[in-house]
Amino acid sequence: MSASQTPPKPRGRQFFANPGPTNIPDSVLLATAHHTVDFNDPAFAEVYWACIAGLKRVLKTGQEVFLYTGSGHAAWEASLVNLLSPGDVILILESGHFSQSWGRMAKDLGLEVRTVAADWRRGVEIADLQAALAADREHAIKAVGVVHNETSTGMMIPLPEVRAALDATGHPALLLADTISSLGSLDFRMDEWGVDAAVGGSQKGLMLPTGLSFTGVSRKALKAHETARLPKHYFNWGAMMQRPLKSFLGTVPTSFFFGLQESLRLMEQEEGLDNVLARHTRLARAVRAAVQHWSGNNGPQLFCTNPARMSDSVTAVLMPEGHDADALRRVAMQRFNLSLGGGLGPLGGRLFRIGHLGDLNEPMILGTLATVELAIKVGGVPHQPGGVDAALASLAA
Amino acid sequence: MSASQTPPKPRGRQFFANPGPTNIPDSVLLATAHHTVDFNDPAFAEVYWACIAGLKRVLKTGQEVFLYTGSGHAAWEASLVNLLSPGDVILILESGHFSQSWGRMAKDLGLEVRTVAADWRRGVEIADLQAALAADREHAIKAVGVVHNETSTGMMIPLPEVRAALDATGHPALLLADTISSLGSLDFRMDEWGVDAAVGGSQKGLMLPTGLSFTGVSRKALKAHETARLPKHYFNWGAMMQRPLKSFLGTVPTSFFFGLQESLRLMEQEEGLDNVLARHTRLARAVRAAVQHWSGNNGPQLFCTNPARMSDSVTAVLMPEGHDADALRRVAMQRFNLSLGGGLGPLGGRLFRIGHLGDLNEPMILGTLATVELAIKVGGVPHQPGGVDAALASLAA
Amino acid sequence: MSASQTPPKPRGRQFFANPGPTNIPDSVLLATAHHTVDFNDPAFAEVYWACIAGLKRVLKTGQEVFLYTGSGHAAWEASLVNLLSPGDVILILESGHFSQSWGRMAKDLGLEVRTVAADWRRGVEIADLQAALAADREHAIKAVGVVHNETSTGMMIPLPEVRAALDATGHPALLLADTISSLGSLDFRMDEWGVDAAVGGSQKGLMLPTGLSFTGVSRKALKAHETARLPKHYFNWGAMMQRPLKSFLGTVPTSFFFGLQESLRLMEQEEGLDNVLARHTRLARAVRAAVQHWSGNNGPQLFCTNPARMSDSVTAVLMPEGHDADALRRVAMQRFNLSLGGGLGPLGGRLFRIGHLGDLNEPMILGTLATVELAIKVGGVPHQPGGVDAALASLAA
Amino acid sequence: MSASQTPPKPRGRQFFANPGPTNIPDSVLLATAHHTVDFNDPAFAEVYWACIAGLKRVLKTGQEVFLYTGSGHAAWEASLVNLLSPGDVILILESGHFSQSWGRMAKDLGLEVRTVAADWRRGVEIADLQAALAADREHAIKAVGVVHNETSTGMMIPLPEVRAALDATGHPALLLADTISSLGSLDFRMDEWGVDAAVGGSQKGLMLPTGLSFTGVSRKALKAHETARLPKHYFNWGAMMQRPLKSFLGTVPTSFFFGLQESLRLMEQEEGLDNVLARHTRLARAVRAAVQHWSGNNGPQLFCTNPARMSDSVTAVLMPEGHDADALRRVAMQRFNLSLGGGLGPLGGRLFRIGHLGDLNEPMILGTLATVELAIKVGGVPHQPGGVDAALASLAA
Repeated sequence: MSASQTPPKPRGRQFFANPGPTNIPDSVLLATAHHTVDFNDPAFAEVYWACIAGLKRVLKTGQEVFLYTGSGHAAWEASLVNLLSPGDVILILESGHFSQSWGRMAKDLGLEVRTVAADWRRGVEIADLQAALAADREHAIKAVGVVHNETSTGMMIPLPEVRAALDATGHPALLLADTISSLGSLDFRMDEWGVDAAVGGSQKGLMLPTGLSFTGVSRKALKAHETARLPKHYFNWGAMMQRPLKSFLGTVPTSFFFGLQESLRLMEQEEGLDNVLARHTRLARAVRAAVQHWSGNNGPQLFCTNPARMSDSVTAVLMPEGHDADALRRVAMQRFNLSLGGGLGPLGGRLFRIGHLGDLNEPMILGTLATVELAIKVGGVPHQPGGVDAALASLAA
Repeated sequence: MSASQTPPKPRGRQFFANPGPTNIPDSVLLATAHHTVDFNDPAFAEVYWACIAGLKRVLKTGQEVFLYTGSGHAAWEASLVNLLSPGDVILILESGHFSQSWGRMAKDLGLEVRTVAADWRRGVEIADLQAALAADREHAIKAVGVVHNETSTGMMIPLPEVRAALDATGHPALLLADTISSLGSLDFRMDEWGVDAAVGGSQKGLMLPTGLSFTGVSRKALKAHETARLPKHYFNWGAMMQRPLKSFLGTVPTSFFFGLQESLRLMEQEEGLDNVLARHTRLARAVRAAVQHWSGNNGPQLFCTNPARMSDSVTAVLMPEGHDADALRRVAMQRFNLSLGGGLGPLGGRLFRIGHLGDLNEPMILGTLATVELAIKVGGVPHQPGGVDAALASLAA
Repeated sequence: MSASQTPPKPRGRQFFANPGPTNIPDSVLLATAHHTVDFNDPAFAEVYWACIAGLKRVLKTGQEVFLYTGSGHAAWEASLVNLLSPGDVILILESGHFSQSWGRMAKDLGLEVRTVAADWRRGVEIADLQAALAADREHAIKAVGVVHNETSTGMMIPLPEVRAALDATGHPALLLADTISSLGSLDFRMDEWGVDAAVGGSQKGLMLPTGLSFTGVSRKALKAHETARLPKHYFNWGAMMQRPLKSFLGTVPTSFFFGLQESLRLMEQEEGLDNVLARHTRLARAVRAAVQHWSGNNGPQLFCTNPARMSDSVTAVLMPEGHDADALRRVAMQRFNLSLGGGLGPLGGRLFRIGHLGDLNEPMILGTLATVELAIKVGGVPHQPGGVDAALASLAA
Repeated sequence: MSASQTPPKPRGRQFFANPGPTNIPDSVLLATAHHTVDFNDPAFAEVYWACIAGLKRVLKTGQEVFLYTGSGHAAWEASLVNLLSPGDVILILESGHFSQSWGRMAKDLGLEVRTVAADWRRGVEIADLQAALAADREHAIKAVGVVHNETSTGMMIPLPEVRAALDATGHPALLLADTISSLGSLDFRMDEWGVDAAVGGSQKGLMLPTGLSFTGVSRKALKAHETARLPKHYFNWGAMMQRPLKSFLGTVPTSFFFGLQESLRLMEQEEGLDNVLARHTRLARAVRAAVQHWSGNNGPQLFCTNPARMSDSVTAVLMPEGHDADALRRVAMQRFNLSLGGGLGPLGGRLFRIGHLGDLNEPMILGTLATVELAIKVGGVPHQPGGVDAALASLAA
């Protein structure tokens, strides 16, 4: 390749600040590169059950978990087909692209979807949810679906408040929570918060490749499963319970378990789960400090305007009017090897997203922020310079 | 660990002669251990589309292919939900455990299942199939489901003969073929043989970890998809066609594509696809030569008794009456680090299976056969010694 | 581990900003993890000779290269024992810790060592060298030893000027250059600059693990080798020339060649060697901009005070009086997972070093600089805040 | 690639039955692919010192060990230059190619070499050694050099008998043993057997890549070191003792230590060192059983004719007159992906060698033997068929 013809590929390690999937630690990557084993072999069963136990500790549940070879959407679908019957009503709390997707899926599978509408920058009013539940006197609503952390907008919905609304109205609907971009990054307590189905995936806080997903399932949900009539096979919990490993229809993706074993070791033994969450909070604050600083001079600003709900795992940054987020992302990627997330659906081109979940530390976040500032500067986007200094001040505090 | 207390773990590389999943070449494992990338990044798209093109060459199709994050069962389910409507009839050719599973899945999803019954050791009579098709004058049968290579019994069903039966009767049913343990190992020609849905997975002839599966789809099947009414979302081809990568709902499992790129390179550039198939035939003959030799003195024998249908990717070996296949497998595994497949369903304990598909060569097959003979000898199973010599003679020919 | 007892291990990828060894790209690490091969196998010879050719292109030589299983010091020793005889005089240009080590080695091996003394912050005066050469009328000096890039102080010695001094005086001494921390990072031209022995190692600009080292050897040096009488065996070029691979006494470390093949691909094909050098210059300027900014308010300053000789691969930063560089390095490492180099020999505790060579990009450098600033701030070291902004300005230019 | 033009590359895992280097377990390869760390970092020091302790347990010594970035030859050279002075006499026990190399090295370094001559197929007579020692009344002999396991001929020299000869004559010479192809495979007891310098390398029984070597050093040897005057720097134990890690001049090859940590875990914790040795014995017997069987009908035979000295880590197989060992090796490699060792020096073409040391098990050995028999058959070499059966009988016993 001649240097004068094509721009050279940017060298050095790619900075992956995209919220999904996310960085995989080297030791997890190498653990995942495990030679093939028989999933019926007792030696594998040891690894397997240790992983299941660890996963339950991360979910903070003493109830059940079912796993799938699939992405997060598979775990969503599994939750619906195992818990509901054709025509059942599911109430979805609007939060952004992913709550919309969940609604579309429910509809495709033959459910009736109702929505608690919300401003995407502030999130749903819990009072609106409570009103909807109270109005449902006949309990037509069989399930309430919430995205715990809406990856498309960088907003966290407080699950304890959702639970409280159900309790306040005495509504028996199942509580389904998408924890895909929160689990292992934000505080999540399945049992304490009364979540009936907690939908999670491998490729975010668990720091694994995409391809393993799962649902934490309450006893109440297992009961509901017995009468649920949506057609299902690949995702059927009942059939799974007949199998020795109590999950998966078909071949078990063994390599993910060797990776999960290592990521659990990193989270629980090397760092400690509480420290993991505290680190996410600390780094997220630094990210927001930088963005808030840039927003001076009509610069890019935080998309989420509700301070209580700003996500500690992803930050969406709204571009100033007239400036294309995707152009900025191309500069970041092609000149500096920094991968940022883009806006999804109607937000395409209007915002970019910084993922700050999983295997991260101060240098990685600071390198990301500094490079975003560099790309903003190089790209001629108005902003107040000094965002990195603001992040430094936040981290030094 | 003291040597006197627990038996030491057998050392050396595990010999994985289990038919599923199968050996992953080192270079594929390492390619799969790729750092996370954005699946929307143009650099990934290059890898992706090259893989799709290669996959089509392996399928021998110029039509479509849809991919899923999922195991082989996911691709089965995708084929059914995308092509059929509630109550539709599917005719399944009985071949063993996997044809039964497919039938169970179809029933679970709301289809009516009819079966062309067969002796598991000889396989279905094509005449029976043809009779069933001819009898279906109103064309109630919407699809015919065949397992190209029945992994549980080591039998290959000749798809051209199935196609011929459909053609002879002028029956318009779609032809669905499970190529999970044949693709990349046995000759398979989707377009030439008129297969409408070819179900495949990553973990066999493609020499990848479990977790990526796919369906080759004919134009006729795409047409049928338009009116198919089984509920679906995660597996919905229509929704996939709207997405830039034309496959996958949700996050794309990028790491599999870096692995697939390497396995395609090994198959197509380093060895040549025809050589891959010829190698499978050569090694399979050696395996059968050994088993046939052992069968003297009332020893273990080939489960498949139909010479024209003996599989070139897996051989099931029936134990002599009164000898437990699983006990033999435990000796092989615990003393010699050789993993053999067991009998599935009603065949449990009665047979063991030698997988000989994927990344294999003469030393690996000979080491496997010699170790099986060693385990047979050590385990006191009657047999005619000298199976390895028979395999050597077969290979030297 | 309880979070309250021991400080948790800092998570995320370690930032390795230590000048030696340096970052290894993932693809090189994985290439190096190659299964064992026979070094006499023709398939390995292909990889081997392609690597030798590539190494010569990086050295910019059409002459010889000899390789050793060993670290950089091994290649130094090889240069001396192959070129000189007991009692021979070598003239060493003082530059810092590594020029001192070279002198000590020469003495240990039985040579007479003379030194052109120099201020470590400014580097040797070429005039002093020229005077020493001119004074040596009987040509007692058989070799001149120079560290092209002194890793301990962050100073580059201009080899063309050294060459010119030899030429100007008509002195026949061999020119020996230590290119360990310059090759593949700074401009180096063995043939054009008349270097007779270019000493290099795997673990810096070539982005490999430590363990492979080599000497580029001129025809003039090969001639000198014929009469050199220092005892030698493991490093003997004459014996190497008898062997098929023309290097190495004993087992050839094959795994390094699979890694080198990949690092050459990255340097030559993916980025282009000129771009590699330009990137080093660009990133080095950003580092110096940050340090120069910090030096306000009596902050840390550049150790090298000679602008023409500031190294583009490593920057040594002198701490303010009364502040311990190693304490700062511990903060960086233990709290933020950033590894900085320390001061060597008499400079221990007085300076820290930022390696900026090898597999690096803007986010990595900016993350490093921002974290250094964070550690300085947290550690209470006086400085002028805003170093990262200065670096950003440098990079945006 | 068209299959008709070039022969396809043989697929499947290469069987590496070459005695040097040898197979590296996957887990060791991946451990070795560790990102760069600072060798002065306390976290690395923990790994380092644990490895040193483990290495001493494998050497069975409570004395010292010094390590080098280098191959086995480097450790040889280190032993000589650290223990001897110019003109000192070393007495070398002839055993084959490697004892010759050691003699040549000693001569190159300025020592006087005497040899106890021996038939390469039977090995040195201990009586001859004792006579030579007894004749040396003035103790001109400063060191006795023995290859514990001569890799070129597959012969083990009994070190306790060598020690006894020294003791019987009251000779004070240092005992230097090359344990490169015995350590971790054959019983070796440095302290109990009174070995003064035990020369070892990473690439055999320790199952690591080539590039790390070491010398176990007795207190008596350390004393001798103090007055040894051969010139040295890179290998100087005295200088090493001044350094924090007590080994290595220059950069420490950290990646080897992460690999060594894993290989020690495999040897000590997973299998147990005694079991490792027992496994080598068991597999070696099977190899010899096969070769002895083949030797009927004027077939290939064991090169070593002294039953008490047949090596348990490598077997040299002498071809029948008129048959080229290298032609046979090419068939094994090019058609079957089996790498065999060749004859060294005067034995080139006359014998091939089967390495059976390191990470091996029954399937690997049986696959190797069966493939050798296949290559012999295919290559038209006379032999008595059934060698694998003989190996099976040996293993089943």
